Amino acid sequence: MAEHLNNKELLNNINTPSDLRKLSEEQLPQVCRELRRFIIESLAHNPGHFASSLGSVELTVALHYVFSTPDDKIVWDVGHQAYAHKILTGRRERFHTNRKLGGLKPFPSPDESEYDAFVAGHASNSISAALGIAVAAEMQHRKQHVIAVIGDGSMSGGLAFEGLNNVSSTPNNLLIILNDNNMSIDKSVGGMSQLLISMHSSQLYNKVRYKIARGLTKTGLLNDQRAKRLTRFNNGLKAMLFKQQNIFENMCTRYFGPTDGHDVCELVRMLRLVKEMKGPKMLHIHTVKGKGYEPAEKNATLWHQPGLFDAETGERIVSGDKIPRFQDVFGETLLELARENPDIVGITPAMPSGCSMNILGKEMPERFFDVGIAEGHAVTFSAGLAKGGAMPFCNIYSSFMQRAYDNLIHDAALQRVNMVLCLDRAGIVGEDGPTHHGAFDISYLRPIPDITIASPYDEHELRRMMYTAQQPDMGTFVIRYPRGKGSLAEWRCPLEAIEVGKGRCMSEGNDVALLTLGPIGKNVADVVQKAAEKGISVAHYDMRFVKPIDTDLLHAVGKKFNKVVTLEDGAVTGGIGSAIAEFMATNGYTPTIHCLGMPDKFVEHGTTKELHKLCRMDSNAVLDAILKP
Amino acid sequence: MAEHLNNKELLNNINTPSDLRKLSEEQLPQVCRELRRFIIESLAHNPGHFASSLGSVELTVALHYVFSTPDDKIVWDVGHQAYAHKILTGRRERFHTNRKLGGLKPFPSPDESEYDAFVAGHASNSISAALGIAVAAEMQHRKQHVIAVIGDGSMSGGLAFEGLNNVSSTPNNLLIILNDNNMSIDKSVGGMSQLLISMHSSQLYNKVRYKIARGLTKTGLLNDQRAKRLTRFNNGLKAMLFKQQNIFENMCTRYFGPTDGHDVCELVRMLRLVKEMKGPKMLHIHTVKGKGYEPAEKNATLWHQPGLFDAETGERIVSGDKIPRFQDVFGETLLELARENPDIVGITPAMPSGCSMNILGKEMPERFFDVGIAEGHAVTFSAGLAKGGAMPFCNIYSSFMQRAYDNLIHDAALQRVNMVLCLDRAGIVGEDGPTHHGAFDISYLRPIPDITIASPYDEHELRRMMYTAQQPDMGTFVIRYPRGKGSLAEWRCPLEAIEVGKGRCMSEGNDVALLTLGPIGKNVADVVQKAAEKGISVAHYDMRFVKPIDTDLLHAVGKKFNKVVTLEDGAVTGGIGSAIAEFMATNGYTPTIHCLGMPDKFVEHGTTKELHKLCRMDSNAVLDAILKP
Repeated sequence: MAEHLNNKELLNNINTPSDLRKLSEEQLPQVCRELRRFIIESLAHNPGHFASSLGSVELTVALHYVFSTPDDKIVWDVGHQAYAHKILTGRRERFHTNRKLGGLKPFPSPDESEYDAFVAGHASNSISAALGIAVAAEMQHRKQHVIAVIGDGSMSGGLAFEGLNNVSSTPNNLLIILNDNNMSIDKSVGGMSQLLISMHSSQLYNKVRYKIARGLTKTGLLNDQRAKRLTRFNNGLKAMLFKQQNIFENMCTRYFGPTDGHDVCELVRMLRLVKEMKGPKMLHIHTVKGKGYEPAEKNATLWHQPGLFDAETGERIVSGDKIPRFQDVFGETLLELARENPDIVGITPAMPSGCSMNILGKEMPERFFDVGIAEGHAVTFSAGLAKGGAMPFCNIYSSFMQRAYDNLIHDAALQRVNMVLCLDRAGIVGEDGPTHHGAFDISYLRPIPDITIASPYDEHELRRMMYTAQQPDMGTFVIRYPRGKGSLAEWRCPLEAIEVGKGRCMSEGNDVALLTLGPIGKNVADVVQKAAEKGISVAHYDMRFVKPIDTDLLHAVGKKFNKVVTLEDGAVTGGIGSAIAEFMATNGYTPTIHCLGMPDKFVEHGTTKELHKLCRMDSNAVLDAILKP
Repeated sequence: MAEHLNNKELLNNINTPSDLRKLSEEQLPQVCRELRRFIIESLAHNPGHFASSLGSVELTVALHYVFSTPDDKIVWDVGHQAYAHKILTGRRERFHTNRKLGGLKPFPSPDESEYDAFVAGHASNSISAALGIAVAAEMQHRKQHVIAVIGDGSMSGGLAFEGLNNVSSTPNNLLIILNDNNMSIDKSVGGMSQLLISMHSSQLYNKVRYKIARGLTKTGLLNDQRAKRLTRFNNGLKAMLFKQQNIFENMCTRYFGPTDGHDVCELVRMLRLVKEMKGPKMLHIHTVKGKGYEPAEKNATLWHQPGLFDAETGERIVSGDKIPRFQDVFGETLLELARENPDIVGITPAMPSGCSMNILGKEMPERFFDVGIAEGHAVTFSAGLAKGGAMPFCNIYSSFMQRAYDNLIHDAALQRVNMVLCLDRAGIVGEDGPTHHGAFDISYLRPIPDITIASPYDEHELRRMMYTAQQPDMGTFVIRYPRGKGSLAEWRCPLEAIEVGKGRCMSEGNDVALLTLGPIGKNVADVVQKAAEKGISVAHYDMRFVKPIDTDLLHAVGKKFNKVVTLEDGAVTGGIGSAIAEFMATNGYTPTIHCLGMPDKFVEHGTTKELHKLCRMDSNAVLDAILKP
């Protein structure tokens, strides 16, 4: 916090990367310092992904300095690391609108900038995507460099491996930069992570290599052609002299590194060296998440997305609100259940703090499995645990669950294994935008036979559903709930079972039936009163279960009402509204039905409240639908 | 074909693996011969997965001989290799019912036998599933060996990597057997495949290693304890002496092999050696797909699933029918389009012959990409190619597309990239059963914004849809079509565009509207005539598009008809019938609707015709629905 650097004389003149490329190499460290300060100051007032972005400042500067963006393409893996990239590519002055409704998008997006080569919201896609771009460039004889920047956390995703496995099989000049900070959001896990650590430790090799590459190129003794040859030789040398092969070279991708990812001049030199080499290659750099901001360096998980903070003191500004998040209720309840039921285990793909499963992990580390960014494995591993007699609670964010769809169908549902799948971040998630909204889960889960799909109205219901789901022989049981706060300060309640497939009547009425699913039903409970003031008697039902759906309830509604309004926090296409319409039409009931939920388009970013309003999912919209003749 | 061995004196007395374990080691080669002959003779008359099953005969015998199944658990990766396993585990006498309606299931299934530890229809799940079982065993202090048997083809799937990446992070004694024949259905591809080949070639190391392990244990000089220590030492020795590390040991899994997978006695020795070792380990064996049957050894792709054949001559019995398969029409049309449009490229995850993309691959190898078993990569790579200016046709079987769901949403649809996704094997696929039916695609695709979903009525429509899809700026365009034959001998027709989102009226009518999607509509076209004979006038519409759905057509139907029958070759929950019900109910139309399609359960195996009847998706069922008051 000591250093003040409000004067950003270099940065303020960089409107596009070509401005950056006019600077001398000696000026780059200052650009980095100004950039880092700019990010810290911006994010203190306008929360966002903090620690990753600080870690990739030097890399970003070096990439745009060495490569001819936007003609050359940088594919960022996950957008967390791309703030410096945004600031250098024409978005500095709008950066204060980042993640706000109508403002800069939360992640790189080709819709926003020609410098954003590919969408980057879900981890591990960069190698496959960049390989596609590079192969297309090769086919079309286009001189174009394509660079994938992937973090070590993303490397644990199967998609990254599939991409890597295919890199060597087609002609291309792809450059993969492995940005290794030994972190995803929490710490990276697994064999790959161990391997990367051991690669860091091969100090002897690095020293020799550095000396060669640095010494010679620094003194200008080498022209480019010779430098290239030497690097190639140097790389071969490694295997010969130090008798070490690594996973990447095993897979026919030339490997360089690890190198210091915070030495911008060194990065520039390395990038120039590998730039013109033919064939796929990987540069492994070592960075520190939160680099240059002490509190973040010390606790990168906390500072992944810290919210508001004081830039000078590093104090995070936490609201005093006592209403807990659904995440906390999940985490505390899981521990409570696990204390009673020795078979319960927890599985999360790299989100122990995000979903609060770290509460279980702290008290019962041997019953807690963080499998890294690997959603498919998380579900299939859970199904295996269940087959072995354990009672798994697997927690995955709804939008990431799209990565494990087949695993749920093939490895869990088809065998009716007893496991609980908790879909966190279901529905609108707010500022993270279209890649992160849990929009489609109801629609894609509904056709899967033999599973249960539930969503709690409030924290008490979440606890009851979790309790119900872990009872014997319940099969594959999905519970979806949203990001953020619930409604009850007193969220603890006795753990008791509810009947599967049964909804509840929240208030009786005669004119219109309002059928809601999940906590959004609580948000609009005031509509009943408002409609009554307009002389309309609304019956409000909390459906609780999408599957099995409460057919008794629906028969009763079909018989009694000519008008039905449904509301869900998810895509209206194929959702519970659709299920209800399907039920009515195929059972001979003929109410008119108004289905409210996320429209059939990708919903942009903004606060959850703003988006609920925009998508016509708030009380006013529901009231309108009820009042509509 | 020379050898006759109709006498199966050993095999006929093996009703469970415990019978096998009563035999002496010297008798095992004969068991293998008898087993191989049994498979050849059975499959000649009752088609199934041939070449893979022949390749794993010795391994299967050795596994059941050394391990105490069913207490110990064998998790097969893909069921192709598991016929010998079925025959040895109480299913020999029912083996002639394999893949038939009501008979043995096509793939291992815990529902069928306690010897089947986990479902095995989709590749690459074995390590994750077996790890789950092994970890649960460890937690419950259960003495149990868990073995995952995975082919090298399955190793290219990201899920296998995710599993492997997690193997070392928890206490477990998992044994992974890498059954390496350098084949998936077609040849294995990618860096991993190259790596495995190079591991075969490290002869020097193998020789030394074999000598140590064999010599000493054979002569009985070593007790188990010392053998274990030596093997561990030997393994460490390898890295030291031969300066070679491999990908598996890099990931903290102890590695043994490669060893000859057709030497059953050697396999028994190796399995005994690794059996009692603590911690995860991998045994790499080398096998030949189709082993012991010359025609299959020569062309394993053709003999993956050869259909009927003459066991003695090796002649395949091919029907003389001139109606081509949809696959052939796809393959020929793709080549035709590619000749005209230089941007077109083809991408398939390991199914070039299955989907007939090999037709493109033969003429234009540089525009054809077999990415191995890696559906996620196939879609993201295609999206990258599209971003780079190519026009990708990516072909994936419908049920395997479940593996690439997020890739379609996040990497393709969200960016509206121009690519064509052809879903082969959509709908009921017949004998491959519940893991392979393309049941859910309409339901899970429908909520995705900005994509087009089409299904052709016949071969001409398939060609027109493919032509339409590759026109400029069509976005992400999905075409689904079923396995097997169409209806037109003269399938070539001019390539012309159709209007996106428009259905067609196939025959006018006044009483009931029959709305169908895809070739199943052609199957039931006779219903119109049959209903007319009963005095009911049926209007038949071919919807063509699920999305955008033809709202003009639906408005017209809603206005005119009180009764609507829908039929689709897919899950009725959330399918096009559901979309139509949704449309009617939310637009104030009140027909009664009968939705026909696959019921809300996992549909078993049988011929496609049998299953259509069973699922009430045939002409009789449609007629019943039309006639129902």
